[in-house]
Amino acid sequence: MLENIKNIHDLQKLDVKQLPQLCQEIRQKLVEDVSRNGGHLASNLGVVELSVALHYVFGDDDKIVWDVGHQSYVHKILTSRGENFCTLRQKDGLCGFPDSAESDRDSFGTGHAGTAISAALGLAKARDVAGQNHNVVAVVGDGAMTCGTTYEALNNIGKTKMLIILNDNNMSISDNVGSATRNMSKMRVGKYDKNKRRLKAFLHKIPLIGKPIYKFLRWCKRRAKLGFVRNSYFDTFNLKYIGIIDGNEIKDLIYYLKNIRDNVDKPTVLHIITKKGKGYAPAEQDPVKYHAVPVGGFADDVDGAEQPTDVQPTFAESSSIVGQTLCKLASQNDKIVAISAAMTNAVGLKDFAENYPNRFFDVGIAEEHAVTFSAGLAKGGARPFVCIYSTFMQRAYDQILHDVAIQNLPVTLLLDRAGFVGEDGKTHQGLFDLSYLGNIPNLKIWTPATATQLEQMMEKSLAEQGPVAIRYPRTLPTDNLQINEGWNTFGSAEAKVKLLCVGPRILQNAIGLQSEKVQVVNVTTAKPLDNNYLATIKVDDVVVTIEENVLLGGFGRSVASILSAVGCKVISLGVDDQFVAHATVDEQLKQFALDANSLQQFVVKLL
Amino acid sequence: MLENIKNIHDLQKLDVKQLPQLCQEIRQKLVEDVSRNGGHLASNLGVVELSVALHYVFGDDDKIVWDVGHQSYVHKILTSRGENFCTLRQKDGLCGFPDSAESDRDSFGTGHAGTAISAALGLAKARDVAGQNHNVVAVVGDGAMTCGTTYEALNNIGKTKMLIILNDNNMSISDNVGSATRNMSKMRVGKYDKNKRRLKAFLHKIPLIGKPIYKFLRWCKRRAKLGFVRNSYFDTFNLKYIGIIDGNEIKDLIYYLKNIRDNVDKPTVLHIITKKGKGYAPAEQDPVKYHAVPVGGFADDVDGAEQPTDVQPTFAESSSIVGQTLCKLASQNDKIVAISAAMTNAVGLKDFAENYPNRFFDVGIAEEHAVTFSAGLAKGGARPFVCIYSTFMQRAYDQILHDVAIQNLPVTLLLDRAGFVGEDGKTHQGLFDLSYLGNIPNLKIWTPATATQLEQMMEKSLAEQGPVAIRYPRTLPTDNLQINEGWNTFGSAEAKVKLLCVGPRILQNAIGLQSEKVQVVNVTTAKPLDNNYLATIKVDDVVVTIEENVLLGGFGRSVASILSAVGCKVISLGVDDQFVAHATVDEQLKQFALDANSLQQFVVKLL
Repeated sequence: MLENIKNIHDLQKLDVKQLPQLCQEIRQKLVEDVSRNGGHLASNLGVVELSVALHYVFGDDDKIVWDVGHQSYVHKILTSRGENFCTLRQKDGLCGFPDSAESDRDSFGTGHAGTAISAALGLAKARDVAGQNHNVVAVVGDGAMTCGTTYEALNNIGKTKMLIILNDNNMSISDNVGSATRNMSKMRVGKYDKNKRRLKAFLHKIPLIGKPIYKFLRWCKRRAKLGFVRNSYFDTFNLKYIGIIDGNEIKDLIYYLKNIRDNVDKPTVLHIITKKGKGYAPAEQDPVKYHAVPVGGFADDVDGAEQPTDVQPTFAESSSIVGQTLCKLASQNDKIVAISAAMTNAVGLKDFAENYPNRFFDVGIAEEHAVTFSAGLAKGGARPFVCIYSTFMQRAYDQILHDVAIQNLPVTLLLDRAGFVGEDGKTHQGLFDLSYLGNIPNLKIWTPATATQLEQMMEKSLAEQGPVAIRYPRTLPTDNLQINEGWNTFGSAEAKVKLLCVGPRILQNAIGLQSEKVQVVNVTTAKPLDNNYLATIKVDDVVVTIEENVLLGGFGRSVASILSAVGCKVISLGVDDQFVAHATVDEQLKQFALDANSLQQFVVKLL
Repeated sequence: MLENIKNIHDLQKLDVKQLPQLCQEIRQKLVEDVSRNGGHLASNLGVVELSVALHYVFGDDDKIVWDVGHQSYVHKILTSRGENFCTLRQKDGLCGFPDSAESDRDSFGTGHAGTAISAALGLAKARDVAGQNHNVVAVVGDGAMTCGTTYEALNNIGKTKMLIILNDNNMSISDNVGSATRNMSKMRVGKYDKNKRRLKAFLHKIPLIGKPIYKFLRWCKRRAKLGFVRNSYFDTFNLKYIGIIDGNEIKDLIYYLKNIRDNVDKPTVLHIITKKGKGYAPAEQDPVKYHAVPVGGFADDVDGAEQPTDVQPTFAESSSIVGQTLCKLASQNDKIVAISAAMTNAVGLKDFAENYPNRFFDVGIAEEHAVTFSAGLAKGGARPFVCIYSTFMQRAYDQILHDVAIQNLPVTLLLDRAGFVGEDGKTHQGLFDLSYLGNIPNLKIWTPATATQLEQMMEKSLAEQGPVAIRYPRTLPTDNLQINEGWNTFGSAEAKVKLLCVGPRILQNAIGLQSEKVQVVNVTTAKPLDNNYLATIKVDDVVVTIEENVLLGGFGRSVASILSAVGCKVISLGVDDQFVAHATVDEQLKQFALDANSLQQFVVKLL
């Protein structure tokens, strides 16, 4: 049946009774394709019915915004991208997130959590200003409810007609945190499914009147949910609230969505419960494990969304290094505390959280709060380590500057997934941190190239009076290269060509080029620069800076500015002024001529 | 009496009955000193009783965090800074915001709204980790309730003992917005003060039993407020709620604060109502006008917090230019919409808001939402102009990058108060925008030097397919310098020394240096650079970039990188790697050798 569904018009020709079968086929396709290509499995299995129902009820002019967007696979399959679905997250293939450049049916591109209601409200207001009347729907996970921008958007809806679907599966990436979300789970009917099925089974056994009674009761319940149920949190914003609905029951979903579409003019929250991993037993049992799946199978535990394409026998997960080191340091220093923003496992803090529950804080998807909170912890005498992916730390730029750096507080920021991130693509690249952190006074930026250096830097940051950011990619080589007073150098100090390499992948790709004519430098501190080293550079040397970061505002610019004041030639390699789409990390390195081959060719031309 | 209060120990020796007199004296001092030096008047007049009560009840070890911090003047007077209070906001004098470098009694530095609860929660958790037991208090205005970080912090309090004082004066800088805050005002007892006074007067007229009845009723009401009043919003976070209390009644305040200090172990919200401008009739009647007061008197309407020290007869307020231009453009193009974040008047949108109420959106102190919402508006076909101060736009770095720039949406960001801001100091400087915006692909950055250029750029941005940021200081010269295809040049094209000037003040200070030997350039686009102009530079030219921005990641770094690749000498002037404290704008320019005299001396040395 799925083969014949090219777009939502094909879908809308089906009878409601055919839809469960369609959902079954979609599930099968998801498991097959995601197991081959990697990607987000559990969340997409959870929203099969929701995606089908939305496209069954809403039309071409209506807009659907998927918060985070990792749950948009079924939506892509139903909107003319089923045939290409096997190219998901591959170079030049489909993006793993909604991407309005890929399809008009992706009404708004997403990636970071908590943007959907803001964006949908913008779409709705633009509709009202233009005097149009299509529907706007935001699909939001319960994790996004911990996010300040979601609150800001709810607070601004007023009377604007739009539908928010709260897709509640009682977890964001790992468990949810926070009082508001805890209260939300109180609202969940504990044994909802079980009791409902028991009642149905019981009534259906009664001859003649059993079925009608059941249908009448269902009708009453549906009407009641449409009219009378309230929720104090959403009441705060004067939103109509309908819930709680079983989001894996397609007939129920279609009933409520049609009713809302046709009869409700107020901004409305439809609260549904879905089961992450629904329909695939291993994913149902361990949805955290099956949140994201690596290429080629389900064997490994994967917290984040990248494929471990760069994992070789000599590499270690950076998150493991962070976790082990932080546990070790915490056992020696009882002031150490750790902060995560809904990514406890992914950033390596699982053991720390278990060993030091009173000194561990998972604040939810709330990076802004995470950083200001850490500033408060530091001001109060604790010694915080804040562990957040490079791309998500972008959210806390002002908090790092205004709350941490102005007061010069001893906070260690650990930025995982720095540099190219591979298949997650544009929205998740760690290619901006050297730039956005690099302009903040008082803040130091350290860039380890090995697991040993990361460990040493974490320990060394404890001796600092002010803030330090340490940025590193997902994996680090395990070789024993240690930190020096200044940058580490390889090859002849007399060499005319100096390759200043930031980060492990660049160093790995360049290290083979060391010779009498080429010096290779392991840049361990992007800020401050190693001025002792730079002072040794002669005016006719050729300095090449190489970094996994945008060139604008990056490491190379700092070096060029210092050396250009004395008239020295500096060439900077990195990402020129553009966003970098999904592909493997190796492909991305190659795209910007940062792979070993390209670097070799570049250096050969210089000599 | 105030003369003898050097610190809170002196204060705590007074009898409660003496405090109203003390408050009276503090009010007088505030009006006198702020009228002379400028600063925030209305908000400080409103919190005289609260500040006195807090320091009367809480001790040396307790921590008080003032959200935003513009209401911390009375706190400063009471904590050993009364004698220096006349130096407020002056170079080397007291900071206009809490500053932990200035005094240990400023438990946490603030400036931007919505950080206090996050920071206080950090202080409280650090206390708990260290096994201490002092009190932590966050004083938060109702405006901060529109702010996402406040929500994120509330959601993370859990059972941590701390006190939040919601200082509700029904306005942040201008009126509050949003459903949650509207619901909060529903809770306010409309004619609270009036009825209370009527009852008191009536009962006191009854001989013998009148007074005891009044006291008994008051006791009942107080106990009830301590025990039984609830608030559904704060209930969401399981916070104990006490309110609503008249925050200008010192005896009531002390009663409740002592009770909470001694008897309440739960996280608690004390909701008080204060009157902005209390005790100074003109400020009571027009608190928006008296929010911030310029140096030397109350004559002019002042929206922001800067003193107009740089206003000369030939300058116009940038906000007026923005307001007029946007109204003009909107009358020609019905897709234009404008967005403000709680600063409608300050950014110049008052008339637009009145003329186009359906196309104007004040989202509250919610810069993150403002930008993502605008991205949604643009995606929906509207043409948004987002007007936010440079320092506050820092909050929306990720939203500009992730929601606007990746999708290359036509959004015009208008950044007022760029460059030095004068007396507001470190937390409010507009010295980072060229850096944090400068690393974002697809985003153009335009830097007008005159009112005419600003107007032309706003119009020109309408023809862009992608986003544009326009950054400008509070005032712009009214002279008729227009935009060109490329940068504007003055002086000989053959000159060896090139001064590349960003922004009106720098151009004004450098323009007199044009000669046969010195070319002065009006840099109208900081990104992209004018590559046609840069191509004319010869390898032995000396290029000097001059900008009101940090050097790191700024305009000069971009120029240096381009030109250093060909071996040309570039010197960059601007703010080296530090935060810039309060002083006048002229003093700040001089501090970094960016005034006309210093630039002249610099150029003389070069020639």
